[in-house]
Amino acid sequence: MTTTDEILASAPQRSEQLATPELTATPQRKLAVLTCMDARLDPLRMLGLRVGEAHILRNAGALATDDAIRSLSVSQRLLGTQEVLVIMHEQCGLLNASEDDFKAALAESGVLPSWRLGAFDDLEATLAASVARLRASRELPFRETVRGLIYDPDTGALREPSP
Amino acid sequence: MTTTDEILASAPQRSEQLATPELTATPQRKLAVLTCMDARLDPLRMLGLRVGEAHILRNAGALATDDAIRSLSVSQRLLGTQEVLVIMHEQCGLLNASEDDFKAALAESGVLPSWRLGAFDDLEATLAASVARLRASRELPFRETVRGLIYDPDTGALREPSP
Repeated sequence: MTTTDEILASAPQRSEQLATPELTATPQRKLAVLTCMDARLDPLRMLGLRVGEAHILRNAGALATDDAIRSLSVSQRLLGTQEVLVIMHEQCGLLNASEDDFKAALAESGVLPSWRLGAFDDLEATLAASVARLRASRELPFRETVRGLIYDPDTGALREPSP
Repeated sequence: MTTTDEILASAPQRSEQLATPELTATPQRKLAVLTCMDARLDPLRMLGLRVGEAHILRNAGALATDDAIRSLSVSQRLLGTQEVLVIMHEQCGLLNASEDDFKAALAESGVLPSWRLGAFDDLEATLAASVARLRASRELPFRETVRGLIYDPDTGALREPSP
């Protein structure tokens, strides 16, 4: 039995508690959060937010990719959010990963990717670059609100690096 | 005071409960989930999973974009996941949205985007296309495991469409 099979088998037990017929697609706190896919992050608990209050975007590294800009554009232009928070974290799987090794591994599978892995060495500098990219993205009407934070899964602490 | 300011001010009260020094970047259930950024979705609760068990990827629509494939590649090749679940949902903000209207709005901001909004009319067909794209992605060693589900925020129900 796969994890997916287990999830489906137990889903009916959870549905009543999950149902939110009182909510719409519009986030109540007009906030969009871009963070990492890391399994240790539980964004709503991390931020003290409730279901329905914010869009949560997640990719490998919390990087401001084209797809993140697409999603944030949908968030601001179609669904009314007006504030953006980018949250990277300590001990990220992309920290000190090797673009070259990754490219070589993909080549062995017969793939020449059009994208970079997104590996980085300096957490704060990478966060600053993502924030800068979003602030310069005219796709986003509320681009000037973008701020960046760093989370530490070992301690649960959240901090804003000094600019 | 912005929502970000409130989040930062209250963060120290949450850190002790959030800390997970016993966990690493490797998801314990070897699962990666791609779902939508929608504010009504709380993926861990929706799936009955705990912090540390799965990578959670989220974008507008839960679409299998290049960035989702990048993130899933990191997940499988660097962090050991072996199973993928794509979860779209009813009442998605991209359902019946207009690519043309969106493009026109961006043009007014002086932007000619290189990406599509990702609007769709048929939820099940779009999910099937995302699943098919991932299953055909040689970047992913465990691409044959990909399955797609649909969540209904109004009822909390999760279902697997018949193929």
